[in-house]
Amino acid sequence: MSTFGTLFKVTTYGESHCKSVGCIVDGVPPNMSLSEDDIQSQLSRRRPGQSKLTTQRNEKDRVQIQSGTEFGKTLGTPIGMIVLNQDQHPKDYSEMDNYPRPSHADYTYIEKYGIKASSGGGRASARETIGRVAAGAIAEKLLKQVNNVEIVAFVSGVGKCQLDRSSQNPEFMDLLQNITRDQVDAGGPIRCPIPDKASEMTKIVEHYKSQNDSIGGIVTCVVRNVPVGLGEPAFDKLEAILAHAMLSIPATKGFEIGSGFAGTVIPGSEHNDPFIMKGGHLGTKTNNSGGTQGGISNGENIYFSVAFKSPATISKPQDTATYDGEKGVLTAKGRHDPNVVPRAIPIVEAMTALTLADAYLIQKSRASTFGVVH
Amino acid sequence: MSTFGTLFKVTTYGESHCKSVGCIVDGVPPNMSLSEDDIQSQLSRRRPGQSKLTTQRNEKDRVQIQSGTEFGKTLGTPIGMIVLNQDQHPKDYSEMDNYPRPSHADYTYIEKYGIKASSGGGRASARETIGRVAAGAIAEKLLKQVNNVEIVAFVSGVGKCQLDRSSQNPEFMDLLQNITRDQVDAGGPIRCPIPDKASEMTKIVEHYKSQNDSIGGIVTCVVRNVPVGLGEPAFDKLEAILAHAMLSIPATKGFEIGSGFAGTVIPGSEHNDPFIMKGGHLGTKTNNSGGTQGGISNGENIYFSVAFKSPATISKPQDTATYDGEKGVLTAKGRHDPNVVPRAIPIVEAMTALTLADAYLIQKSRASTFGVVH
Amino acid sequence: MSTFGTLFKVTTYGESHCKSVGCIVDGVPPNMSLSEDDIQSQLSRRRPGQSKLTTQRNEKDRVQIQSGTEFGKTLGTPIGMIVLNQDQHPKDYSEMDNYPRPSHADYTYIEKYGIKASSGGGRASARETIGRVAAGAIAEKLLKQVNNVEIVAFVSGVGKCQLDRSSQNPEFMDLLQNITRDQVDAGGPIRCPIPDKASEMTKIVEHYKSQNDSIGGIVTCVVRNVPVGLGEPAFDKLEAILAHAMLSIPATKGFEIGSGFAGTVIPGSEHNDPFIMKGGHLGTKTNNSGGTQGGISNGENIYFSVAFKSPATISKPQDTATYDGEKGVLTAKGRHDPNVVPRAIPIVEAMTALTLADAYLIQKSRASTFGVVH
Amino acid sequence: MSTFGTLFKVTTYGESHCKSVGCIVDGVPPNMSLSEDDIQSQLSRRRPGQSKLTTQRNEKDRVQIQSGTEFGKTLGTPIGMIVLNQDQHPKDYSEMDNYPRPSHADYTYIEKYGIKASSGGGRASARETIGRVAAGAIAEKLLKQVNNVEIVAFVSGVGKCQLDRSSQNPEFMDLLQNITRDQVDAGGPIRCPIPDKASEMTKIVEHYKSQNDSIGGIVTCVVRNVPVGLGEPAFDKLEAILAHAMLSIPATKGFEIGSGFAGTVIPGSEHNDPFIMKGGHLGTKTNNSGGTQGGISNGENIYFSVAFKSPATISKPQDTATYDGEKGVLTAKGRHDPNVVPRAIPIVEAMTALTLADAYLIQKSRASTFGVVH
Repeated sequence: MSTFGTLFKVTTYGESHCKSVGCIVDGVPPNMSLSEDDIQSQLSRRRPGQSKLTTQRNEKDRVQIQSGTEFGKTLGTPIGMIVLNQDQHPKDYSEMDNYPRPSHADYTYIEKYGIKASSGGGRASARETIGRVAAGAIAEKLLKQVNNVEIVAFVSGVGKCQLDRSSQNPEFMDLLQNITRDQVDAGGPIRCPIPDKASEMTKIVEHYKSQNDSIGGIVTCVVRNVPVGLGEPAFDKLEAILAHAMLSIPATKGFEIGSGFAGTVIPGSEHNDPFIMKGGHLGTKTNNSGGTQGGISNGENIYFSVAFKSPATISKPQDTATYDGEKGVLTAKGRHDPNVVPRAIPIVEAMTALTLADAYLIQKSRASTFGVVH
Repeated sequence: MSTFGTLFKVTTYGESHCKSVGCIVDGVPPNMSLSEDDIQSQLSRRRPGQSKLTTQRNEKDRVQIQSGTEFGKTLGTPIGMIVLNQDQHPKDYSEMDNYPRPSHADYTYIEKYGIKASSGGGRASARETIGRVAAGAIAEKLLKQVNNVEIVAFVSGVGKCQLDRSSQNPEFMDLLQNITRDQVDAGGPIRCPIPDKASEMTKIVEHYKSQNDSIGGIVTCVVRNVPVGLGEPAFDKLEAILAHAMLSIPATKGFEIGSGFAGTVIPGSEHNDPFIMKGGHLGTKTNNSGGTQGGISNGENIYFSVAFKSPATISKPQDTATYDGEKGVLTAKGRHDPNVVPRAIPIVEAMTALTLADAYLIQKSRASTFGVVH
Repeated sequence: MSTFGTLFKVTTYGESHCKSVGCIVDGVPPNMSLSEDDIQSQLSRRRPGQSKLTTQRNEKDRVQIQSGTEFGKTLGTPIGMIVLNQDQHPKDYSEMDNYPRPSHADYTYIEKYGIKASSGGGRASARETIGRVAAGAIAEKLLKQVNNVEIVAFVSGVGKCQLDRSSQNPEFMDLLQNITRDQVDAGGPIRCPIPDKASEMTKIVEHYKSQNDSIGGIVTCVVRNVPVGLGEPAFDKLEAILAHAMLSIPATKGFEIGSGFAGTVIPGSEHNDPFIMKGGHLGTKTNNSGGTQGGISNGENIYFSVAFKSPATISKPQDTATYDGEKGVLTAKGRHDPNVVPRAIPIVEAMTALTLADAYLIQKSRASTFGVVH
Repeated sequence: MSTFGTLFKVTTYGESHCKSVGCIVDGVPPNMSLSEDDIQSQLSRRRPGQSKLTTQRNEKDRVQIQSGTEFGKTLGTPIGMIVLNQDQHPKDYSEMDNYPRPSHADYTYIEKYGIKASSGGGRASARETIGRVAAGAIAEKLLKQVNNVEIVAFVSGVGKCQLDRSSQNPEFMDLLQNITRDQVDAGGPIRCPIPDKASEMTKIVEHYKSQNDSIGGIVTCVVRNVPVGLGEPAFDKLEAILAHAMLSIPATKGFEIGSGFAGTVIPGSEHNDPFIMKGGHLGTKTNNSGGTQGGISNGENIYFSVAFKSPATISKPQDTATYDGEKGVLTAKGRHDPNVVPRAIPIVEAMTALTLADAYLIQKSRASTFGVVH
């Protein structure tokens, strides 16, 4: 449903063309500094219209905190947040009314609910993610303060142009160790921190845009300074919740942590991460595990990648059928993202922060009662 | 934690060397035929010692239903199930006591809890999955009866030997359409239904076994006859819950549904699944989506793949460090699986069934109140 | 926390002096007619300032639906609702700043959170219940449509003036069978439907108001046409959830269902409700049970009573201590309700509706799968 | 359903005549000393057959810990517990097969589930509470260790013989301050600590037993040394969860905390608990609140009372109807408790401990992150 988390809990509402979208964040620890500015920066990063690579709708997306803070401090009570819907253009989509868009949610919503929002993506719209990003910004601030946790996502693939994401590639592991959010944004609207790759990816997106087509991509996210011990066996392993969080983002088709699918070909003797001393405590020499073992964070960098399919709504004519089953050709009007991965960056970061903040609070409840160190 | 599901809810208990492992399954609809035999078949499929490819421990694993049924019918009350632990061999592992096994859960458990089971994998052991498989067998029976749902998992990769799992490979899509559980098992202990691939995979496992090493693999699972409309936007999209379920299985590192990571390179105009009429209702011509759109099942086959890393416990000596940080060499004694994917088959099927049974009950609560067809 | 329900789920936000209060209602079945008018009527019933018996703050409390409906129909997606805070008067409370109000939440909030809203009741304010009432109105509409469920609460006690609420009092049982919401409101602002009792209660409230004091009371609620089979043993018995719901309302101190505390003195042979035929199905001759047996609704009227203490904030001087422990006298300024039970009526009705709507959806998910009649 | 709690979470299974009853307790902090003896004492206190006042079935009720501990310490993993069903006597109940017992769960179970256990109370049997008591013993040990929390329940009413439970009765408040579990048990099987009242209550029970009838009663429970700050506004106020917990116990009809229903007649100026210094921190002079304000514990004693109806199963003939609606006379065979309140004592204590342990862990997750004292 529309609630995520156990102790740090976000509930979102809103679809593409209603009055507003927003969320309630429950369980934020009290006495934390928090202003709308803390939240706005990530919201602005997810806005469309930031470049010619993404759709030009001018969404203002100003967050308004409704409750839960006073004089810049959290009260420990639910934080309500609202972002008004401004640019609704329902008429742009009128021609599509008879057709369920292929690979979009039109058909499944009408089948599930017997009704759907009359225009736009409704609840399946990317606008639904605004509440997540707003909530994630609060989670991120919490994590930053308690352990200087750093969360950085970046584009690691657009179409056939992909970084070598191997856990055994030292350059990639260095990138994960050092990449900053500023570097990601400095690389231009494509948000790939490797300049020549960024340039190639940009060309790919422009190519598909010129064809009225679309193309998918991959987002990689790294989290540094994760406290040891987060994640709850058996069903709520940290990677399981992360996978849940990532696959809940629209248009995602895959998730892999650490060595991922490529790791299945590496024998155990190479894949195992040997223990070594690091600054007074145990760490691992390599990090094929991606920062968790047995579902629990081990203090190494957590990193994972998420696959985003090519956007379903394209202006290129498609042979398909109407809701009534009559064959026909759908040509979507309106402005559509040829590629969503740059805009997905803050969403991936937000879902990561929400997952970790919740895991942190849960672990905190258990720790130190009877002599646990952490 | 140790509970999975909202309405069809399983809670498991047990570690590798305690009295028993088991589960409580709450929310099973009443009046369903159910016997221990219904459950035992899948439990037996997950037992080790079924072939020379997997560990030889002779786990009997006989399930005993404690409650929730009478005269072969479910009562609607919680079904308690127990499987005794018999083959415990705690001494086999004694040499490892000073070393946290690299890439195993020894270190993270001791850090998280300040204590861990003295031998074996404890709660991180594969024995924890017995409760899941027992519960999954009940979920599967429910799904079978309400819509003839078929769930079949098989090995699609071992080390570098992999099937071409592309959503645009007609042979693979045919396999998904037709594969049966009998065919999977008929192919020998490796559980790959393509004979020459099975043979190659078997050799790979034997090779690593002879090296006292281990190797990973990939499990693909297909679900046919899924009712339309399952899955709950926004956070509980069907693929999100499936990803959660799969990444909660020990040793998993990745999940992809439909076209997955490979789908990111297919432009929207090819990736989109056009609608066509199929037997009186809308279906899709292709199935790059993998059976869901917008997080909701669309009636097409759901299929996804899960990456399993190479098992962490190997007899080959490993340079690592003790809990105290002293360098040393760990040589694990005991019998260890060189590859877990064949045994993972019933676990993947179980977690799939649990996910879908829960989604089915949730959707059933909403449907038809105000004129929804499904 | 701030979420109530499993499938029909409300999450509220807001305190007494922030921008707005509101809620998100998730899980509302699709295709249900719903407008702001459906919600406003109950919100208006909970407004203060409706009579000289309650506080005169002029809260407008206009609900604004943000999402989840289109053209007057529910979409099945979360319904966001907002009510602006208008009459804030923070200065009225300034004198109390050094004193935690006796029996109010000032002290416990500061101890729990280390911070509290600077004026008014913060999250412990009655304004928090606005979101509940708005959500409850939707739940009520659902229940009305699926089984013509009727929920009517009324004042059954103010101070020492109390109705004879015995389950063995035929007049009281008749009242429960016939009372309507219109009759409750017609009886004047005290909302007791027995005129002479209403008159007496009104005098009691006026007396305590004139003393700058306050007095408590009792609300009784009856629900008619409840479907048989609602409620989930063992922990989520219908009466357990109702008790949870009622004791979550500010200022409540007790809950009893059916015969309640008085029923403990009635021997089993008299207390048991014998079965008789009623219009083609089994019913009970008496209703000491209050409409549930074994935690499950039996189709008879559900009725229960809720005790509300005398409001804590009074203008009469009180000997108490400051936060620092210094003795002193607190004289609360501002306008305060001398009695809250009339305003509690729509809140009790709302929490009842939320409880039953959730139980209804849960039961619906289980029913009819394998031949259950209901 | 059959799970209670968020972080300290118990799931129970089992009915009156299946193989075993038991539970899984998830979320127990690691490194806590725990043996079967810790649990058995409370289980033995709830056993029937301890005196002539309660039913003579010889239930052995030996708990067997299945998992989650090693060498007498908790591992932090789920604790599975089993108690075998031994004395089943299904034939004793055969005559009742055509009749739903008045005010028992026979009718509602068959209506809800379309099936019910063929004999005994099934899931509605008091045996279901064994899992609760076992889990509660663990919760209690946790609370004892972290803050020396003391939970003592006792019988405060049987039929018309009742203690004066007024929050303004100094003797009763003294009793709450000093009563021990040993004193409760020392008073004989009726478990009322006031000797002359105990004697009178015993006579009442014997009277109704001799009439083949039954009689109800009241249990009062006090909790001392509760940490300040437990309980989660708005819906999960501590008293709301306690009410939920208590009304989930079979045969309960009411709950009141602090002054309860009687408190509604006390004006605010008397009902308010003024603050005074107590040993260096703020406390309250009186305790009409019952230990919580705004849903949060304030450090004073928590006390509440629970109403238990007269047991439904009686041997006295009852005019009623069969499942088919034919009039007839039901005379229940078998041995039946004429009064359940003495046996309810450890169940009330267990549900109290489960509620507080969960609230404690939840609060612990929030505290001290940003400077909260507690």
